[in-house]
This record gives sequence, C-alpha cells and structure tokens, in this order.
Amino acid sequence: MLILLNLDAPRKSIDAIKAKIVSQNCQPHEIPGESNLAVGITGPTHTLVEDDYRFMDSVVEVVRVSKKYKLVSRQMKKNDTIVKTNFGDIGGKELAVIAGPCSVESRDQIFRIAEEVKKLGIKFLRGGAYKPRSSPYAFRGLKEEGLKLLGEVRKEFGLGIVTEVLSPETIPLVEEVADIIQIGARNMQNFTLLDEVGKSKLPILLKRGLSATVEELLLSAEYIMAQGNFNVILCERGIRTFETATRNTLDLNAIPVIKKHSHLPVLVDPSHGVGIRDKIQPMALAGVAAGADGLIIEVHHDPDNALSDGTQTITPEQMKNILNKIKSLAPIVDREYN
Amino acid sequence: MLILLNLDAPRKSIDAIKAKIVSQNCQPHEIPGESNLAVGITGPTHTLVEDDYRFMDSVVEVVRVSKKYKLVSRQMKKNDTIVKTNFGDIGGKELAVIAGPCSVESRDQIFRIAEEVKKLGIKFLRGGAYKPRSSPYAFRGLKEEGLKLLGEVRKEFGLGIVTEVLSPETIPLVEEVADIIQIGARNMQNFTLLDEVGKSKLPILLKRGLSATVEELLLSAEYIMAQGNFNVILCERGIRTFETATRNTLDLNAIPVIKKHSHLPVLVDPSHGVGIRDKIQPMALAGVAAGADGLIIEVHHDPDNALSDGTQTITPEQMKNILNKIKSLAPIVDREYN
Amino acid sequence: MLILLNLDAPRKSIDAIKAKIVSQNCQPHEIPGESNLAVGITGPTHTLVEDDYRFMDSVVEVVRVSKKYKLVSRQMKKNDTIVKTNFGDIGGKELAVIAGPCSVESRDQIFRIAEEVKKLGIKFLRGGAYKPRSSPYAFRGLKEEGLKLLGEVRKEFGLGIVTEVLSPETIPLVEEVADIIQIGARNMQNFTLLDEVGKSKLPILLKRGLSATVEELLLSAEYIMAQGNFNVILCERGIRTFETATRNTLDLNAIPVIKKHSHLPVLVDPSHGVGIRDKIQPMALAGVAAGADGLIIEVHHDPDNALSDGTQTITPEQMKNILNKIKSLAPIVDREYN
Amino acid sequence: MLILLNLDAPRKSIDAIKAKIVSQNCQPHEIPGESNLAVGITGPTHTLVEDDYRFMDSVVEVVRVSKKYKLVSRQMKKNDTIVKTNFGDIGGKELAVIAGPCSVESRDQIFRIAEEVKKLGIKFLRGGAYKPRSSPYAFRGLKEEGLKLLGEVRKEFGLGIVTEVLSPETIPLVEEVADIIQIGARNMQNFTLLDEVGKSKLPILLKRGLSATVEELLLSAEYIMAQGNFNVILCERGIRTFETATRNTLDLNAIPVIKKHSHLPVLVDPSHGVGIRDKIQPMALAGVAAGADGLIIEVHHDPDNALSDGTQTITPEQMKNILNKIKSLAPIVDREYN
Repeated sequence: MLILLNLDAPRKSIDAIKAKIVSQNCQPHEIPGESNLAVGITGPTHTLVEDDYRFMDSVVEVVRVSKKYKLVSRQMKKNDTIVKTNFGDIGGKELAVIAGPCSVESRDQIFRIAEEVKKLGIKFLRGGAYKPRSSPYAFRGLKEEGLKLLGEVRKEFGLGIVTEVLSPETIPLVEEVADIIQIGARNMQNFTLLDEVGKSKLPILLKRGLSATVEELLLSAEYIMAQGNFNVILCERGIRTFETATRNTLDLNAIPVIKKHSHLPVLVDPSHGVGIRDKIQPMALAGVAAGADGLIIEVHHDPDNALSDGTQTITPEQMKNILNKIKSLAPIVDREYN
Repeated sequence: MLILLNLDAPRKSIDAIKAKIVSQNCQPHEIPGESNLAVGITGPTHTLVEDDYRFMDSVVEVVRVSKKYKLVSRQMKKNDTIVKTNFGDIGGKELAVIAGPCSVESRDQIFRIAEEVKKLGIKFLRGGAYKPRSSPYAFRGLKEEGLKLLGEVRKEFGLGIVTEVLSPETIPLVEEVADIIQIGARNMQNFTLLDEVGKSKLPILLKRGLSATVEELLLSAEYIMAQGNFNVILCERGIRTFETATRNTLDLNAIPVIKKHSHLPVLVDPSHGVGIRDKIQPMALAGVAAGADGLIIEVHHDPDNALSDGTQTITPEQMKNILNKIKSLAPIVDREYN
Repeated sequence: MLILLNLDAPRKSIDAIKAKIVSQNCQPHEIPGESNLAVGITGPTHTLVEDDYRFMDSVVEVVRVSKKYKLVSRQMKKNDTIVKTNFGDIGGKELAVIAGPCSVESRDQIFRIAEEVKKLGIKFLRGGAYKPRSSPYAFRGLKEEGLKLLGEVRKEFGLGIVTEVLSPETIPLVEEVADIIQIGARNMQNFTLLDEVGKSKLPILLKRGLSATVEELLLSAEYIMAQGNFNVILCERGIRTFETATRNTLDLNAIPVIKKHSHLPVLVDPSHGVGIRDKIQPMALAGVAAGADGLIIEVHHDPDNALSDGTQTITPEQMKNILNKIKSLAPIVDREYN
Repeated sequence: MLILLNLDAPRKSIDAIKAKIVSQNCQPHEIPGESNLAVGITGPTHTLVEDDYRFMDSVVEVVRVSKKYKLVSRQMKKNDTIVKTNFGDIGGKELAVIAGPCSVESRDQIFRIAEEVKKLGIKFLRGGAYKPRSSPYAFRGLKEEGLKLLGEVRKEFGLGIVTEVLSPETIPLVEEVADIIQIGARNMQNFTLLDEVGKSKLPILLKRGLSATVEELLLSAEYIMAQGNFNVILCERGIRTFETATRNTLDLNAIPVIKKHSHLPVLVDPSHGVGIRDKIQPMALAGVAAGADGLIIEVHHDPDNALSDGTQTITPEQMKNILNKIKSLAPIVDREYN
C-alpha cells in the first residue's frame, strides 16, 4: 500500500500516519518525491483497510498495490486447485457437471430425477432441502426430510450430493449426506456461516452474490480458507443489473478474471444466471468457452410442475443435448468431458 | 393475479392451469376476451409465484395485480405504524435520531461517545459489537465484551441501544442489552435470521440490502412480521450502482415509494449511503425532506482513529449542526424535532 | 395492450380511455371480468405508449402484450436477416469477423495492420476516423484524413471497411469509403443520427449503449429500419454495472435474447466488452458459443503504442489463435468459419 | 499522474515510458522507492489517459492524482459560477426554478401552461420542440412549429425559454427563441453536439446521462467550456439502476459531490429522476436540501392528456405547493426563494 501526502505535510501528520501503520503490525517507509511525499508500507498489508488512512491529515490518495486477499490468490499458489470428492474432481482437466432440481420435492421426484441424471453420466446431483425464498409464503423446502431423501438417493445411485446450507446449526445434518456444501448467493456475505463452513471437512461451493464484485467473492472464499478449509469452489450465477430481459445478468467476464487472480476452480450456473429455459444451452456453452471448470444446471423431469424455479429448469433430454455439445467444445479450451 | 392465454388455448391447458391454481388454495375465473383468454385468480394470491405459471402451455403473460406482501402493506393497515421503545417512538410525528460509532471499540470510547450523544439530546445510541466485514482480516468487533459495554452505557446514560445481530444464536445475548435489534444490509435476505428475530419481542431495524429492490425489502420485513413481530423499522442505506464517486448510492426515492406501499416507519442512514464525511449533512437533510421518519448517523469523538468506517463518521460538533438544521426543516414536512 | 380498470370504474372514465385509444388509431374492446374490467386494444398497438394510460382515472394496470417494435421483430420476419456486402455476408451460416485498430493513426499504421488482417483471411477492417472520447483532450481521430487512408487501404487490400459516423453531416464522406457504417454505443439513442443513417444505402452496425436494455437496442434498430434501411447489424459491446474488475460487463445473455426476438444479425465486441487484453480470447469464444453471428475485435501491430484503447487491443498473432479456435468451435453451434 | 513500476524494471522499459510522457508534452520524474520505482509526471497531465501506460512493460499501477478535467474544476475557479440570463440568474443565492410541459403540443397548450407558470412567479418555461423518444413511433415534437410557439410565449409572458437541441444544424433556430439550450441525457456524450453548443453564446443546461458517472458529466461540461462557452448548468435527472419501483434513480448524492469538485451550478429534475407524480414533491424538497441550485419540473394543466411524460407531470396547483415549501426550506440551506 502506498499513501500519498501533500509535499508540505507537517512532520506531525507524517508521524501520526507512520505510528498508525506500526500499530497495525506493518512497516512504513518514507519516499520523498517531486509532487508528493509517499509513504510505502510493507508487511502483512492485506490486513490493512484503505479507508483507515484516507481521511488523515495531509493525505492526498491511498493506493492499494497488493490485494486484500492472500490464501485465494494465485500469487500464493501458482497451480490450479483441484477439489477432490468421492465422486470426482472439480478443477482439473475434466469438466465437472452438477445437475438436478432446484428443490427436493418428494421421494418420487428426487428418485426420478436422480435416475435420469445418473443415466446421463453426470456425477453430481444438486437439490435443495433448505430453500431461501424472497417471500415467506413461497415453498421453503422439505428441510430434514429433504436431506434424508438426498441421503437415500446418494446410496441408491452413487451420485455426489450438492446441497445448500442456510444456517450454522444445520451444518452437521447437511454434512451427513452432502459431498459438497453450497453457500447460496444471498449468504455470500453471511460471515458467521462462512466461518462455520470453514471448519467443515467438506468442499464448499460458494456462489457469487447478486451485487458482489469479484473481489468480494474472493474475500468471502478467503473467510472459508482462513478457517482451514481449502476446498472452495467458486460459482458465477449472475449479477443484478438494469437489464430486465433476463432474470439476472450472467457475468462470464468474471471467469477469466477469477482465473487470473485465484487458483480456485469456478463453475457457471446458467440456470440462475439467465433464468430462461431456452437460453440455458447457449449460456452453458459460453461458460465453458470462457474457461469455466464446469457447470451447475437445474434439471427436472417435469419443469412446469417444479415447486420452485420452473422457468429456468430444463428437461433431461435438453441436458443431454448440452452434454453432447460440451464434449465437442471441451478440447477447444484444453478441457475434456466424457 | 391474471394469466393471459392464447385465444386458441386447448381445454386441456386451461384445465391444467386452473387445477394448479386450486392446488395452491386460490380460485380461478375464466374471462374470455377478444385477443386473449384470461384466467383471473382470487383468494390468497400473495402466496402465488408468477414463475409457476409463466411457462405452462398456452400462457402468454402472467400479470400480478396485487402485491406479494400483505402484513407490511398499507392496504392491510392504513395508519402509520409507530414503534414504541422505552426511550421514545419511531414513526410518529417526532423525527427519530440514532447516533453513535460504527463499532464499540473500548470502554473509554463508547462512554466518551455516549456522553456526547446524550449531551446532544439524542435518544438512541448505535454501536456494533458484532461487525460484518468483507475481509476476514479486518476488525470484527468486541463481541460479547462489546455487548457488555453497551449494557453499561445504557444504564449510565439512559440511551436506547441499537446494535446488530449476525446469527440466531447470539439473539438472546443481544436482547439483554438492546432496545432495537439491527439486521444489517448483508443479512437482509438471511431468512433464517429474519425468522428468528421475528420471534423476538424487540423492535427490528431492517436495513436494505445493497442490491435489494424496495419490494424485496418489504418482503424481508414480511418475514419478520409473519413470525409475529410487528415492530419493524425499515432503513435506506444506499444501493450499489455503477457510480464510484460515492461509496454507495443513497436511494432517497425509496422513501416516498415505501411510504406509499407500507405503513412501516423508515429511517435514512446517510453515513453508509454516501460514505463520505462532508456529504453526510446534505444527505441527512435531503432524507428528512424526502419524508423519512428519522436518521441513523455514525458519530465518533475521533473519527480518524475509528477502527472501522472512519471516512464516513462525523464528530459530535458536526452532528449538532445537522440537528439544528433538522429542527427548522421538520415542520416543513409536517414533522417535529426537539 | 390491455388496460385493467377497477370494477367500479365510472362510465365516464371508461369512455375517456376508449376515446383516447381511438384518437391514437387503435380499437378498444371492453372485457368485463370478476376482479377487474379490462379494455383490450387492437390495431397498430406498437405505436402506443403505456404511460399515456397508466395515470388515467380508474386505471389499475397497463399490460403490454405485444412489443413496441415491429420491423426488427421475428414475428414480422421469421428468417434470419443476412446482410450482404461486397466483401461477404453477415448473419448467415458463416461467422463474420471484423478486425483492426481502434483509430486510424497514420498511413503506416493502417497499412501495416491492414496487411496483417488480410493475411489472417479476415474480410473486414475496422478503424475509426472520428473518435468519440469522454475527455475533450484525448485523441479524437484523424477525421477526413483518416477516411482517405481507409479508402486507400480498401483498394489496396480488398478489405471491407467498417468505420464510425458521429454526426449526420459526415455521413456522405463516410459513405464514400465505408462498406458498413458504425453507430457507436454513445450514439445508440442519438435519434437524429439514426434517422439519417436510416436513409443510407449502406449496412449499419449498431452498438448497444452502455445502459441500454435489449428492448431499447431493438427500438433504435427500428428507427433505422423505419427510414427504409433494413440492413442493420446489432452489436453487444458490454454494459455498465457495479463491477469494476472489467471495463464493462459484456452481456452475452443478450445474444440468445436478441436472437429470439429479432431476425437481425448480432456481433460480439469482446474488446470493449471486457476491456482487458488477456480476456479477449475467452470472451470471443464465449460470444460465438452463445450464438453470435460474428466478432469485432481490436487488433494492432503494436498495441502498447496505440493512440487509443491500447489496453484492450491484441496483436495479429493473438488474433490468429482466436481464429483457429473459432474454426473448431463454429460447427458445434451450427456455424462455419474458414 | 504517477506510474508505479517493478523495482527490477529494466532501463529500457523505464526509458520507453519516459519517452512516451515527453511525446505527450509532459515531464517525467523518476522517484526511487523501497517497494516500487515510481515515475511522477508534471505538466498538462489532464490531457493524459491512464490506459496509455497501464499495459507498458514493468508497469504495476497507474495512479491519477489530478483530475482529467480542468475548466470545470473548483481548483481552477474557487467561486461558484453564476449563470446570467435576461430572466434571472442560476447558481447564486436565489434558487432557480424552471417549469413547463415535457413537449410543446399546441398553441393553446403552451399558452395555457405559460400563463399558469407565470402566475406562480416562475421565471423560466421549459418545453420541448424536438423530442428524443426511444420508439420511432412516439410523438417526436412539433419541431420548428414548436420553436415558433415558444418564441411567441416568450414575448407574451416574459418567461425565459429552456428548450432542447438534438442536432448541430438546429442550433441556430433554437438560439432564436431560447434563453437556455438544453442538452438531454441521451446526448450527454454526443460530442459533436457538445462542441457546437460550446460555440453558442447561450447558457447550456447539460443533463446527466442515464449511465454517466459524475466524472463523465464534468468531462462533458469540459467539452463545452473548452470551446469557449463558460455558461454551463449541470442537471441531475436520475441514473439507471436495478430498481424498477421508480422510472430512474434520482442520485441526489451527486449534488454535494459536484459542488465539491466543480464551480458550476447544478439543478435537480425530480420529474425524470423518479418519474412518478406523487413522488415529485418529496424529491424536489430533497434536492434543494441536498444543496441544488434549483429545480426543473414538468408541469401541465392537464397531465393525463399530455402527449409525453404524463405520469411524471404535475399540475400548477401541485407546483404551487412545492414552491411554498421551497420558500421555507431555502434559508435552512443558506438559499432564498421569493
């Protein structure tokens, strides 16, 4: 970090700034210049907050040269992280695919879909037992009953289970059946929850918040890693913009940006990202072309009667078409999918 | 709600739609027309989700005439809600003012500020014991120790305490010292937390999320009220837009919009809304002029050395100026402040 | 369009609404219902503006069922429009590629780049003679001199010229050398200019404005077509959002949305869309995967010394890599590129 | 401007950067440091573009210390600019008010409204002769006929005329009747038009674009001033955000930001800013409370039958209420209105 001061900054102001830097366990270095006096900072500068210095006397500008995160950073770890599960890796050469309904609705429904997903050669089944809904009157999931069904399906079909957790106290229940724990977009900055899943042994699928910058997404991943859980999978799922033609604006630009700054794998969720059934395929292909490590897609055997997210859910048949295209597309971006 | 179908919609499709409406405890009514066949819906339509119908066969458009929320709605309750506390009302003719530091930092600090706030005639002291921070390395509050200090200050100075809760399990601790429980912007859609504070006896100050629409804010208030807690105070604190000249974009337009649709009181937080010290006063005045029921402002005796949010914190002296202006401004918008 | 009224709307209000509809050359149709009285409208409803009716007495809601545009609409013309030029088609099975510098800077520069572009087998050369710049002090193009150089290059290399027009009076000059006239993002709603290029015989490349919805982009195309010029090529080039990690947010979701609603071809401009050199390739591939009809990319033999947009410009070598990948990618999305 | 380089930057790279600075008429100054080598720049740095340097070899960061604009800057001119017209000043202690219809629709309409506006003691009449409309099928103004009517009204009632210009060739016609020329939001970056009105002798009312940052608004004002026209009045009229409850998001935060960085006067347009009739009054008051130099408001004797913008237009009676409130509010923010 670099703090630029007026050339005529009084000694008192300079010393106050230097003292504050030292109090935050970093080292200040005065750098005299022609148009400004600069104070450079070394040490654990990722722990500093620019705003702490911005309004101090004589300060003209605070410049962050290094990033605020550390463990998620590619500077820290050059090689791509490959998250390993009992049902396959996420982040390696092979593209990862997760499919399934928005919510677990009934035994029949989840078994029926799991069978279709398995038949398509997909390794991971998604399905929400706890559902965050903007209205308190909407269907909020089968909860414990939903988890139980996911556990049965896991055993029956040998599919890795990806399911969302909404609060710290249900983590142990979720851990019993899940292979990957999902943190949804609305909880990306629920820091209590991030701390707690950071203590889990399971991989965490962290979805980007609707108005979160890529930097904030990485900082939320840093929360999880700072607690010792290094198996974090990021997920782009659309941001909120002025455009209303799509449910959200799937921000594929984030993929190469994340890939440059972080070693963590990143998936694309075109279902939430665009929110319209007939646009899932083009955006899924675009996500892989942009460099994503895989896809998470909502699939239901009867989308029109899904209890949630029906408009953005595709059929197993449509999913099959996507997978066929992905197979051909993968080698063009140095990936594979079988 | 009204569902528009193609004129040539087959009987099978129409019946499927009507059956679904009945299964969701509402009543369908066929309305033949020249360019479309419409199916009107009566009953508890606020529990319906447009998307459930949008992609069914023959559907052209789904039109929501009524709102998704009910308890927060001014249609439900014509008169303004006045939230009562031991230290004064929020939502009545008298403007409410809450002031204090971003975080409780130490005994000295909070006592010093409380004294100043009291001297200014302000009735409520804000101060965070649990702090949500985008970086895991930033100061995250004194936690239980901070709550204890707030309890002492409350007794010593007779100030109503407003403090944030981050997770359900700390609600009982917070309830011991708080007069109003704050739900922060990042938790506005932490539905587990909303359910839980909905069971509290204390008033809830619900801040608008950075990318939340007014409708979503009202739906989050509906969550709290649906659990039986009708003492909800809304708070506009800035949304995220493309503009980077200010920390957030304080959306004062939301004030008259909320006032029209809901009976709940609404405060303005110019500190987070604009995030720059010398813009707090104009935006505080503008908030009152726009019709807010009061203000929540970050005040610190030594803003430059605040452990968080220093750039947007003002001094007691600056706060005094604002209050003086508010006193003159209040009657112009049919309010008072003494 | 459908206007919903209160059930107890007085006859006077209903008649006023019907009279207004008739005065706008459409026909009103009363549709009695259980919860609302509806007035359906037939005739040239794309010329109506919802807001004209929204605040009339007794009106509950105005619902647009049909679109505001007509000529651009796929309902009007089922088949994809193929724009023909002397140097190749845009919008057919073959992907179109346009490459070249942001600005024409000198004879040497544009000849050098044209040679490289030609060598790559690309058919269209982009290059700005008139440059819109947010600062009046930045390089604003060589103007007439730039056009002259483009004319020479066209003859020398047999490349189709794509260049921007900023004002009606320079259209004739631009028409002398251009094969496709570009309307830049900042002029997407410069309606005077749209009217004028609507009278040109040349195809128009219409770029989406930074804060334009897809519907507004289509309405701007409608302006051009309404003047008789049906050769409009749309271009997605990034929208403005809260994310600052990229220069703009390339909104690839717009591609399948446009393809559904309109028969016009649409290109993707990853250079402006993401604005960072090493992210051009992934976003170019993603654009084609999303269904675009082609690409427009900034290429310069010496990007670091380009007079404008250097950070988002790639070398001919990097362009060659993209083209190689596109060749393999095209058949996966039922396209070809040779 | 300051360019930060890697400590181990080779001499060749440093010299290339310094040569480029010199070629752009500025002076480079090497500033060795501990963590970075910095190159400071002096001279006319407002003409430099950061991106020109950002991707050169060894560059870590480019920091703009000074602003890109100069003539609009308060550093250049400490005192507030007061724009003088034959009908009153804009930017002084007295608040300025402009009122009138969106469009001139007929002789009767504009005379009727002018009479009402005059009766209210307002000095400036707004009214569009040339109307930018997103649809080519909407009413686009009476054009020359509208200008003629404005000229008559000006003479008859002694009101200053504020009217929009859409293209350079109509400037002379507009200059004949206007006292202030308006540049609309959609033309804020129509640089050809800015250049031309920069040559006019009349004051220019420059409206902020829907997705323009405050910095871009100031740069557009700089365009006008760079041509010699120093009488520029800025206008905040709402930006585009994700919120759909209001037509736009009136960004009152921009007022104190502009006031800090620039000496130019700034008006608030609550009609376009919020777009809903019953929210005009609170947002007008809020605008004045935030520090605006005045208001521009759409007034019509029969808003429901206005040919454009009816939903956001108020009656003369409602305008009178606003003015009464403004009279009391003005002294609180050190203004006056009589």
